[in-house]
Amino acid sequence: MSSNFGENIKLSIFGESHGEAIGCVIDGLPHGVELDMDKIYLDMSRRAPGKDKTATPRLEKDIPHIISGVLNGVTTGAPLAMIIENTNTKSGDYGNLMTVPRPSHSDYPAYVKYEGKNDVRGGGHFSGRLTAPLVFAGAVAKQILEKKGITVGAHILKIGSVCDEGFDMLNVNKEMLESVSKKSFSVVSPRAEEQMRAEIEKARLNQDSVGGIVECAVTGLPVGVGANIFSTVESKLASILFAVPAVKGVEFGKGFEFGEMLGSQANDQYCIKDEKVAMLSNNNGGILGGMTTGAPVVVSVAFKPTPSISQKQKSVNLQTMKEEELVINGRHDPCIVPRAVPVVEGAVAFALLDMMI
Amino acid sequence: MSSNFGENIKLSIFGESHGEAIGCVIDGLPHGVELDMDKIYLDMSRRAPGKDKTATPRLEKDIPHIISGVLNGVTTGAPLAMIIENTNTKSGDYGNLMTVPRPSHSDYPAYVKYEGKNDVRGGGHFSGRLTAPLVFAGAVAKQILEKKGITVGAHILKIGSVCDEGFDMLNVNKEMLESVSKKSFSVVSPRAEEQMRAEIEKARLNQDSVGGIVECAVTGLPVGVGANIFSTVESKLASILFAVPAVKGVEFGKGFEFGEMLGSQANDQYCIKDEKVAMLSNNNGGILGGMTTGAPVVVSVAFKPTPSISQKQKSVNLQTMKEEELVINGRHDPCIVPRAVPVVEGAVAFALLDMMI
Amino acid sequence: MSSNFGENIKLSIFGESHGEAIGCVIDGLPHGVELDMDKIYLDMSRRAPGKDKTATPRLEKDIPHIISGVLNGVTTGAPLAMIIENTNTKSGDYGNLMTVPRPSHSDYPAYVKYEGKNDVRGGGHFSGRLTAPLVFAGAVAKQILEKKGITVGAHILKIGSVCDEGFDMLNVNKEMLESVSKKSFSVVSPRAEEQMRAEIEKARLNQDSVGGIVECAVTGLPVGVGANIFSTVESKLASILFAVPAVKGVEFGKGFEFGEMLGSQANDQYCIKDEKVAMLSNNNGGILGGMTTGAPVVVSVAFKPTPSISQKQKSVNLQTMKEEELVINGRHDPCIVPRAVPVVEGAVAFALLDMMI
Amino acid sequence: MSSNFGENIKLSIFGESHGEAIGCVIDGLPHGVELDMDKIYLDMSRRAPGKDKTATPRLEKDIPHIISGVLNGVTTGAPLAMIIENTNTKSGDYGNLMTVPRPSHSDYPAYVKYEGKNDVRGGGHFSGRLTAPLVFAGAVAKQILEKKGITVGAHILKIGSVCDEGFDMLNVNKEMLESVSKKSFSVVSPRAEEQMRAEIEKARLNQDSVGGIVECAVTGLPVGVGANIFSTVESKLASILFAVPAVKGVEFGKGFEFGEMLGSQANDQYCIKDEKVAMLSNNNGGILGGMTTGAPVVVSVAFKPTPSISQKQKSVNLQTMKEEELVINGRHDPCIVPRAVPVVEGAVAFALLDMMI
Repeated sequence: MSSNFGENIKLSIFGESHGEAIGCVIDGLPHGVELDMDKIYLDMSRRAPGKDKTATPRLEKDIPHIISGVLNGVTTGAPLAMIIENTNTKSGDYGNLMTVPRPSHSDYPAYVKYEGKNDVRGGGHFSGRLTAPLVFAGAVAKQILEKKGITVGAHILKIGSVCDEGFDMLNVNKEMLESVSKKSFSVVSPRAEEQMRAEIEKARLNQDSVGGIVECAVTGLPVGVGANIFSTVESKLASILFAVPAVKGVEFGKGFEFGEMLGSQANDQYCIKDEKVAMLSNNNGGILGGMTTGAPVVVSVAFKPTPSISQKQKSVNLQTMKEEELVINGRHDPCIVPRAVPVVEGAVAFALLDMMI
Repeated sequence: MSSNFGENIKLSIFGESHGEAIGCVIDGLPHGVELDMDKIYLDMSRRAPGKDKTATPRLEKDIPHIISGVLNGVTTGAPLAMIIENTNTKSGDYGNLMTVPRPSHSDYPAYVKYEGKNDVRGGGHFSGRLTAPLVFAGAVAKQILEKKGITVGAHILKIGSVCDEGFDMLNVNKEMLESVSKKSFSVVSPRAEEQMRAEIEKARLNQDSVGGIVECAVTGLPVGVGANIFSTVESKLASILFAVPAVKGVEFGKGFEFGEMLGSQANDQYCIKDEKVAMLSNNNGGILGGMTTGAPVVVSVAFKPTPSISQKQKSVNLQTMKEEELVINGRHDPCIVPRAVPVVEGAVAFALLDMMI
Repeated sequence: MSSNFGENIKLSIFGESHGEAIGCVIDGLPHGVELDMDKIYLDMSRRAPGKDKTATPRLEKDIPHIISGVLNGVTTGAPLAMIIENTNTKSGDYGNLMTVPRPSHSDYPAYVKYEGKNDVRGGGHFSGRLTAPLVFAGAVAKQILEKKGITVGAHILKIGSVCDEGFDMLNVNKEMLESVSKKSFSVVSPRAEEQMRAEIEKARLNQDSVGGIVECAVTGLPVGVGANIFSTVESKLASILFAVPAVKGVEFGKGFEFGEMLGSQANDQYCIKDEKVAMLSNNNGGILGGMTTGAPVVVSVAFKPTPSISQKQKSVNLQTMKEEELVINGRHDPCIVPRAVPVVEGAVAFALLDMMI
Repeated sequence: MSSNFGENIKLSIFGESHGEAIGCVIDGLPHGVELDMDKIYLDMSRRAPGKDKTATPRLEKDIPHIISGVLNGVTTGAPLAMIIENTNTKSGDYGNLMTVPRPSHSDYPAYVKYEGKNDVRGGGHFSGRLTAPLVFAGAVAKQILEKKGITVGAHILKIGSVCDEGFDMLNVNKEMLESVSKKSFSVVSPRAEEQMRAEIEKARLNQDSVGGIVECAVTGLPVGVGANIFSTVESKLASILFAVPAVKGVEFGKGFEFGEMLGSQANDQYCIKDEKVAMLSNNNGGILGGMTTGAPVVVSVAFKPTPSISQKQKSVNLQTMKEEELVINGRHDPCIVPRAVPVVEGAVAFALLDMMI
């Protein structure tokens, strides 16, 4: 099991959901970067649960506590270690999960792989809570990218049957990205928010959950970040995005729609605009030959519905090897997607920074 | 630029389309593996061009020549180096590409990144031809996996508007995978082949190209391959699949469809079958918490249409910085998807073997 | 700056000498290992300062606090994070070091490299104190190796002009290694201890310091650990040993003495002993072709004298660029070597475990 | 077994002594570097055997043949692949080595590790011949370093009882390094060469071999290359140097001599010279806190005597498990050290370039 990412900036994530603390070490950050802690707290709070009915009412105070690598608010160049103490965990709720695995959760393969030795309380190291250190690392990365004129922002493209307006792949700009990435429920259209909230509430009332899609864009990238074969921008971004629990699909630009297109429709032709090379479309989502083209990078990420639902489900008892019905107690997000937006932004930002340093 | 992949088995790919040779080094293979060269040649020929009208008529004799790491047909444990000599290349066809980039190709970002120093003949190191060493490495990996009872097979799920029957995610078996992975035009349904060939021929006659989707499955995997956070099976497979030129989307199980689903529809519930843990569905494509579940791993890969089309396209001259129309000469695949099937199989096999050693 | 080590087990070390805490994350440990904390505390205390006059009287309570990866005293397979809180630090003592670098310390190159942004209090991330997490990680590794019948032990071979008896390279055994690795002043011969203590006391009274050599051996290793070219056991061990501050030389078996030897003297000839392959000598220190031979691995490590001495020294003021005399206040080890013994053991143990998993 | 080195520039070495060819892939070189092939050939010929009586009379034409990554003599930024064809090998000479291991060679552990599947002809992948690709990679690295004003040069410090003048650690300069690194028998003092040749001839006549020490220095490095903990310059250089067959010790600056020194003798005090920070001595060999100090980097490397000697030696038959006397036929270097000088230079150059890119 390796919870490490990065070639130039190495991120090591640790902790269990109901253990003493979770956190991370970020090794390889440039020295001399003044950190704006308020911006970091904002992203942490966008991910944190308990804000409203769309999310679990558990109160987690996700306050990141930096213990090394920063002096007087400025990075020193030494590894930055951060911990978040765990509070308000009710381990009792998870008592029966060791032997009766929750459908579509990591419980069953983890039981087999770790022979019952892994910490199952609250999902242990497999918990979605472990995305908090990733949001932290991403928030740090976003600040460093910002100083290079690069902006990362994401929004909820879809929840169930409701869609937000997609980004204009060719023209999405910094202002749009800053606008959505400040919201706790990140959408372009206020009307979409209303309908999405209704969709989530409906799932919640039915003791059910609902999936969705997050769309993320990056503006201001220079031409030529990444490389071909095993170092494509797509490889690196997909690699970190599939580390986020519940992510089951990643596509760039037109993505799966390309499968139905002709070359004459799909190709992004060139023009000259303001004496610079520009494109007439950006179907490739800002990446050609694995390298950035200067157009916005656009990536979409599919999330499956939260597997924890309160409805009765079929499972098996791993010790008696008999079938057993399972009812999952505790409170769970009827939709993880709104809280996943800053996770996607952070993951994308961290991977890009790693490629640029 | 790094053309290296793998943590336990390191694959290093080299060469340019119109250089002297392309090839790879595979470092970390187990010793004592008897290689069946005929199986390797079969996969090489499935990828090779010139077989019929769906592919470029250029004749490339993709004969892999092993120069180290194998003695009397058996791996020694030392690095396996392989080269494929380039023949029959017509560099003259590519003369104007240095200054007038082909739309949706790597030409423009490569020009900026390498300041005109990269080898542009035939796409150089960016050419799709560089997937030949990946097919070779994958064919070696497939043989080693086979000895562990693991089978990898893929088929064309879609070309343009034509779909093949999708794999039965829960029940796809070894026989089905062996059947499709022997074909040079890999489909489940013969009728789909006919329609797909027609779709490709239509594009060819229109001097156009068409995209598609490849679906790949793996049976026989033990429970617990992979891990969570940054070592998920999804991360590793996506990372290597996005190294294949023209790939723009990767999804596992229901993938993007999950965005519209409810948890009660999406969850894979458990049962007991033949005294073993089994599932009632496999929407997650055989992976939970980043680990294999014992159900077949199912991944779909979206390919954009070949960007090289003979129609007149808009581009710019990078030296004069003026707009210019471009006509691409030479013969190009109207659809890359049929030849991409063994590339997808090989990439998936190599990444899985790397995770299991 | 990368404070990461390991290919299969990843060790990430963080913290600054006078920051809030130091610690590490160990990612990739096997699950199900019951940790004997007393053995870990023993190694921590062997490294800790303040035990007697040979070491700095600063009291550092090096109590490792595990915050993840261990449940009920047993490893879970998830990353093990550990922190040691810093207490009793007197930052005032180091006030002038930013501008007037201490000779033979990291101060000057760190000042240039980090442009004055690095934490200089107590040496910051460059402090010898950062060996405490390495001792912790090594103590964990030693326990896992012990369960495989492998024993690691080291002793002070030399301090100044005083030598301990060297290990018998061919016959050193588990009992000998356990005996020296339990001592807080690790030597084979009690008489050597007495003379070494006198040598150190002499240096201390002269406001000076003294260097030395640590010899480490490992018994019980199977044949064939490691590999040739870039994966030799020598490469891996040297790589981690040169991470220990003050280490300036590493040799295996006869090491530099080989430079004067003939092949007929140096070669380790084979014999049969107890129906097994054995050797008549072990000049190669248990490693041939980069791989273990089954004979004890023997490595010697040279430490330079502690650069912090109280005598007046010549230095320069980096801001005024004028020469300046420097007197280092505070209390410093007149000899670091006795405390370095568990660091060497831990480093060797960790690197070997990483190669064997 | 991993024959890969490098974090930013990845070097993958392949081939067997008596196989078809040996070679390497260098991935990550900067684009636009014009290669001076004559300089590369010079280093290859310094390593090549057969020049005179100090070396084996086997004729190996070590002509490196570049097959990718270079266009019109200039690097393209794509992976540089190079092969050297093997000629004039007499495999018959090695017939009995599979079952009766040569003392102090890799034969025995390789037999156990690879279960008899490794290629034993001429040492296979374990042969010293595999240093030829390292010399090639190092010669490329030296050229890139030269353009940054950095010079790498080495000489034979010692063979048996004969010593050359050591480098002046503080004042060794570019001219001195260029002078020794042009010689095929690299020494500072012509008288030392004469005596060393006599020492080697004496060993040869006695059917014996003799060891030695190579000293290497690097001038022109900026301050601050490398970092502390696991990224020290010492760690990186030792890691690559211990990849060279027969190397058993590595030390920096005063190295093992530090064990006898006092801090007041050992410390390198600072002064101002030409308005710059300078040192009064360079006992630390140009490295403090793992980082370069601006003073010359000085490293010494101990080589054991060639284990292949013609005298009768004791060994065992691994199949009958009986003791057996062994006489090694074929012609072997009575001293490997003169040919090892460009290997040390190349290894040091490659590792430094990897740290600087």
